[in-house]
Amino acid sequence: MLKLNIDSEDTNSKARAGWFETDHGKVETPIFMPVGTQGTVKAVNQKYLAEEIKAQIVLSNTYHLYLRPGKEILEAAGGLHRFMNWEKPILTDSGGYQVFSLSELRKLKSDGVEFSSHLDGSKHFFTPEKVIGIQRSIGSDIMMALDECAPFPCDYEYAKTSVELTSNWAISNKEAFEKSKPHYGHKQFQFGIIQGSIYKDLREKSAKDLLKIDFDSYAIGGLAVGEPMEQMYELVDFTTDFMPNQQPRYLMGVGKPENILESIALGIDMFDCVMPTRNARNSNIFTWNGTLSMRNAKYKNDFNPLDKNCNCYSCKNYSRAYLRHLFIAEEILALELASIHNLYFYLDLVNQARKHIANGDFLEWKNKKVAEISFKN
Amino acid sequence: MLKLNIDSEDTNSKARAGWFETDHGKVETPIFMPVGTQGTVKAVNQKYLAEEIKAQIVLSNTYHLYLRPGKEILEAAGGLHRFMNWEKPILTDSGGYQVFSLSELRKLKSDGVEFSSHLDGSKHFFTPEKVIGIQRSIGSDIMMALDECAPFPCDYEYAKTSVELTSNWAISNKEAFEKSKPHYGHKQFQFGIIQGSIYKDLREKSAKDLLKIDFDSYAIGGLAVGEPMEQMYELVDFTTDFMPNQQPRYLMGVGKPENILESIALGIDMFDCVMPTRNARNSNIFTWNGTLSMRNAKYKNDFNPLDKNCNCYSCKNYSRAYLRHLFIAEEILALELASIHNLYFYLDLVNQARKHIANGDFLEWKNKKVAEISFKN
Repeated sequence: MLKLNIDSEDTNSKARAGWFETDHGKVETPIFMPVGTQGTVKAVNQKYLAEEIKAQIVLSNTYHLYLRPGKEILEAAGGLHRFMNWEKPILTDSGGYQVFSLSELRKLKSDGVEFSSHLDGSKHFFTPEKVIGIQRSIGSDIMMALDECAPFPCDYEYAKTSVELTSNWAISNKEAFEKSKPHYGHKQFQFGIIQGSIYKDLREKSAKDLLKIDFDSYAIGGLAVGEPMEQMYELVDFTTDFMPNQQPRYLMGVGKPENILESIALGIDMFDCVMPTRNARNSNIFTWNGTLSMRNAKYKNDFNPLDKNCNCYSCKNYSRAYLRHLFIAEEILALELASIHNLYFYLDLVNQARKHIANGDFLEWKNKKVAEISFKN
Repeated sequence: MLKLNIDSEDTNSKARAGWFETDHGKVETPIFMPVGTQGTVKAVNQKYLAEEIKAQIVLSNTYHLYLRPGKEILEAAGGLHRFMNWEKPILTDSGGYQVFSLSELRKLKSDGVEFSSHLDGSKHFFTPEKVIGIQRSIGSDIMMALDECAPFPCDYEYAKTSVELTSNWAISNKEAFEKSKPHYGHKQFQFGIIQGSIYKDLREKSAKDLLKIDFDSYAIGGLAVGEPMEQMYELVDFTTDFMPNQQPRYLMGVGKPENILESIALGIDMFDCVMPTRNARNSNIFTWNGTLSMRNAKYKNDFNPLDKNCNCYSCKNYSRAYLRHLFIAEEILALELASIHNLYFYLDLVNQARKHIANGDFLEWKNKKVAEISFKN
């Protein structure tokens, strides 16, 4: 198991601050993992990711890396850490979500899923064993089990069958994990993914099925796929009660800054989302006083930093007026500066949460910040 | 005048190593100026430009900055140095070349040029006075006089009329320069641009006309526009003989690494070109052993750096295989890493030339390197 060492627990919510250890270093929780889908966090180099943004762990994607550059090149490189020159921990998603969201053709079978590549239409078949094999070649510190991510909305019968399939695959995942070994000398952990759509009894069944299999830790998948936010929070609250206290809990693909703060209060420790980088590339900036749309003409003569409360490279060196100019002029530097800022903000957000959990005033702070950061300037 | 302090002169060629001083710092020559057309060197942030690439001076464009962000915003920012957060020297082209190359509609008149914006078709009129005014708002350390850049090929009569126009405008440039003052407290220099197409007598006339006006220094314009390389070298060799020895000589828009080395041998001190950054974005990499096309499949398992003789951030941290993956996967990081490398290479090139001029073995070194760096891998 991957042990979460808990430093402090909030008495007014389920929030906790802790840390876990991998062979590539310690991760302090709650943590946000920048998304490096194809072995690069879009528009940000690895030095800035480590030193400016202070990312402690990044997420990459089995599906994408399998298609490009492919297993052979990753093996020849000595794994993804060496390939991309990233010495800190890496978590890889299993590909279940990408097969569901990107692939045109997807055929579920009892032992795996057939899909066509979104790049060239070529056909592939993922089984739990195969996905473990790819993640051994990648060498991620945390590997996710192959699951079925059900669509939304999803009727009860579909969701029930889907949970059963995910539970069956989970057994194969565990077996394949135990039969195989790391390729590069460092330990790899495996997380199970709790599914069940919006149905509490199915979430409970999924959690219990996976806990029996005894994964290193557990994630909640299949949320933030279109359901109302209040329903998501209710399901997260419900599900974390079934997840072990002493292991990090990961809410996959979430989310907006306010979703992250709310979910920390519900007992979540780990997050990932494309939002900080994707929104950055679309000129949407997160700040402690709400979001900014940097193409807006009102910033053309605004020589303040993006966020006066921010210490990131972009805020310390450039103005809103300059950023706006770069976006309007379609300059690549806009993408880098905005991405650095948004990722720094997300890491700052979870670090601040961590401090307030330790200080004992997390809930009050969280409620205040959720209102401020949700504001649209 | 802008004095070139000559440290050493090559006895076997017209190459010289020197330095000149601006209020934003010293520039050692021969020098390459990275091109920051719109107030940013494409895909590279200002910290990397200064600290990794070790750029001593960058070029920006009056035409582009005038259209976007515009004079008012640059004034409000306190000039381009502050707007883009670049504390070292900036040279601005006058817009003559951009009006010739980018604008759809261009009407030459005796007192200036009417053109339509390549962005929105709006009509504008540039006179020498107006262009000086914009460059005062930009606050560039070196301002170029407005010239007519004749097309290639160009018949003698057109070229002759064009030189006369450029000489007349040069007088207005000088007058406007002397009547106006810097806006931000630092000294600005003005260079005249020698035109004359491929006609030696016109190059001579243009040089002599401009020297009478007594600019701070002089550039050669209107070359590398399509004429054969040997003809360009012959014209550069011919023209530098008319340019003052104690002032930096600038060959505008040149060029490939081998063109730069050859032109240093012909007495040129300053260069600019979009090639290192543009080629980088097209996955073409310059190395001391020739050029590489990084999308080539042969690099997919090549874990060497781009250039084993290079100390740039990209070469110290990433492999050819990783760069190829980034290009194939259309990742933005490819653009940054390739641009950093190519610019570092160009700066390394002129720095090495400088050292060999001082060592007294420039010509021999240059001939050897021209052969090596021209090789297509």
